[in-house]
Amino acid sequence: MTYHLGVDLGGTNIAVGVAQGQTRLVAKVSRPTGVGRPWEVIADDIAAACRQALDQAGLTTAQCGSVGVGVPGVCGPGGQVVYASNLCWEKIPLAQRLSAALELPVELSNDANCAALGEVVAGAAKGIPNTVLVTLGTGVGGGIILDGRIYQGGWQAGGELGHMVIHAGGELCGCGRRGCWEAYASATALIRQAKRAAQAHPDSLLVTLCGGQLEGLEGRTVFDAASQGDRTAIEVVDAYEEYLAEGLANLVNIFRPQCILLGGGISHQGEALLAPVRQLMAARSYGGDCIPVPKLAAATLGNDAGILGAAALSKV
Amino acid sequence: MTYHLGVDLGGTNIAVGVAQGQTRLVAKVSRPTGVGRPWEVIADDIAAACRQALDQAGLTTAQCGSVGVGVPGVCGPGGQVVYASNLCWEKIPLAQRLSAALELPVELSNDANCAALGEVVAGAAKGIPNTVLVTLGTGVGGGIILDGRIYQGGWQAGGELGHMVIHAGGELCGCGRRGCWEAYASATALIRQAKRAAQAHPDSLLVTLCGGQLEGLEGRTVFDAASQGDRTAIEVVDAYEEYLAEGLANLVNIFRPQCILLGGGISHQGEALLAPVRQLMAARSYGGDCIPVPKLAAATLGNDAGILGAAALSKV
Repeated sequence: MTYHLGVDLGGTNIAVGVAQGQTRLVAKVSRPTGVGRPWEVIADDIAAACRQALDQAGLTTAQCGSVGVGVPGVCGPGGQVVYASNLCWEKIPLAQRLSAALELPVELSNDANCAALGEVVAGAAKGIPNTVLVTLGTGVGGGIILDGRIYQGGWQAGGELGHMVIHAGGELCGCGRRGCWEAYASATALIRQAKRAAQAHPDSLLVTLCGGQLEGLEGRTVFDAASQGDRTAIEVVDAYEEYLAEGLANLVNIFRPQCILLGGGISHQGEALLAPVRQLMAARSYGGDCIPVPKLAAATLGNDAGILGAAALSKV
Repeated sequence: MTYHLGVDLGGTNIAVGVAQGQTRLVAKVSRPTGVGRPWEVIADDIAAACRQALDQAGLTTAQCGSVGVGVPGVCGPGGQVVYASNLCWEKIPLAQRLSAALELPVELSNDANCAALGEVVAGAAKGIPNTVLVTLGTGVGGGIILDGRIYQGGWQAGGELGHMVIHAGGELCGCGRRGCWEAYASATALIRQAKRAAQAHPDSLLVTLCGGQLEGLEGRTVFDAASQGDRTAIEVVDAYEEYLAEGLANLVNIFRPQCILLGGGISHQGEALLAPVRQLMAARSYGGDCIPVPKLAAATLGNDAGILGAAALSKV
């Protein structure tokens, strides 16, 4: 069976793809998630999107081996979504309903895990079986691939890399703890720091670039202002990179993976971000020059990573 | 083959045991490591100790399946000790020499990894395949067991849990980084904090209990003074437990293992330490009451953990 369905279930959209082998999407469809509707209706929409994607590819369910779903939350045994805050879901038997609707085996995993697996089977870490993906977005997400398989942890609740404290007693995190990496290395954190700096330095390009409306300040604005030589923005970016590297070096020391990938909006800065962070990370890695330091690169598949990884769930 | 040799190679002693099955030591011998002698001489002493242990058990090498060695350092492919600072070893082909001397297959791993494996096959985490052992001694060591097997990481250099920064820019660590967990949660760190506190509060029991000689202050002194109600010692212990729990909660969020064990001298405090740390760790674990929190317990095998774990290396 060379075809597999992959579903990236997000708070905004349901994206479904048909994967041929592990690396190629032969069809892709998307529809709104419509959060707030009964979960059964959303599940039936996922099944409908799956059928639509198969149609688009000219395939039937009989030609398809499995369905994998990346879920924005914690999954549990028996294909249950234990908890997905953005969907307001608790203890939802999603796999069971999808499996009955499509007559196919269904596997679930956390969406960050799926994205990491996608990058390992088809993306920036292709062929590198020990890879950690860190997504820098609203929060800091993590996906850990060890020996080519997702590391889920007990109760499938491992991999919460953003909730590793790097500054005890520091910034308050959304999770209630103080000093989490997420509170320093997410796009949200970068923007918060930039706003503080802009308020203290109203002559900064940070203020000019968002037309004086700080609420419109985005992650990219900070990098843009820094690249134009704005002192305030440079300081914000430097501090951000230090904190990012601090957490990355922790992951090196804990996992010593072969590869660490950065995903999410911030990773689009590419080498402008990666080059300094690579140096800072290496300098903080245990063993100095004696032990190799993982490759640090940007994820390359974007939204397809989650779909391809979900499609690969049954195969790893 | 039901017998296996396990070697715990330390900076002070070479301890060798003969394991029957995974849980029982039928013979045990020890001799000084004699650091500073040529590595070949030390290796030959290890081989001699292995033969002596087999003799003691009334066995021949032919009745023995393998030799496992726990090394205080980083091991590499081909049974090489890449780096062991306490032994002043670099790139030592230890397994090759031992294997030739004993005519048995030899496997090496880091000593903390072996201790963790020993506790999983025969000790406090028996039958719990996803367990992290944290040793609180001169430093903070880590051994990670996933699915019943040692997680070594790339270049066998993972598991450096003590060198996870929990307080960016904080206390200087021996590794050169600032804010490592080791700089807050090791016995060394506890003693350093206690000395600072004793100097600031010369009327503290901390001073009395070491006869006014602060250089004689030990980890247990701090707990003794705290249990006797000394305000200064209580504050030192409280802060120590907070930092210990901070790192433990990080491990929960990253690995969500089923079990975390504390080993090393400090762990002998038992429930007096475990009970408060268990609460602090749970309060800092992601997902609050929604996701189970690992069991936290003290390691129980002491020095035998490393021997039993080394003996089990060939079987996992």
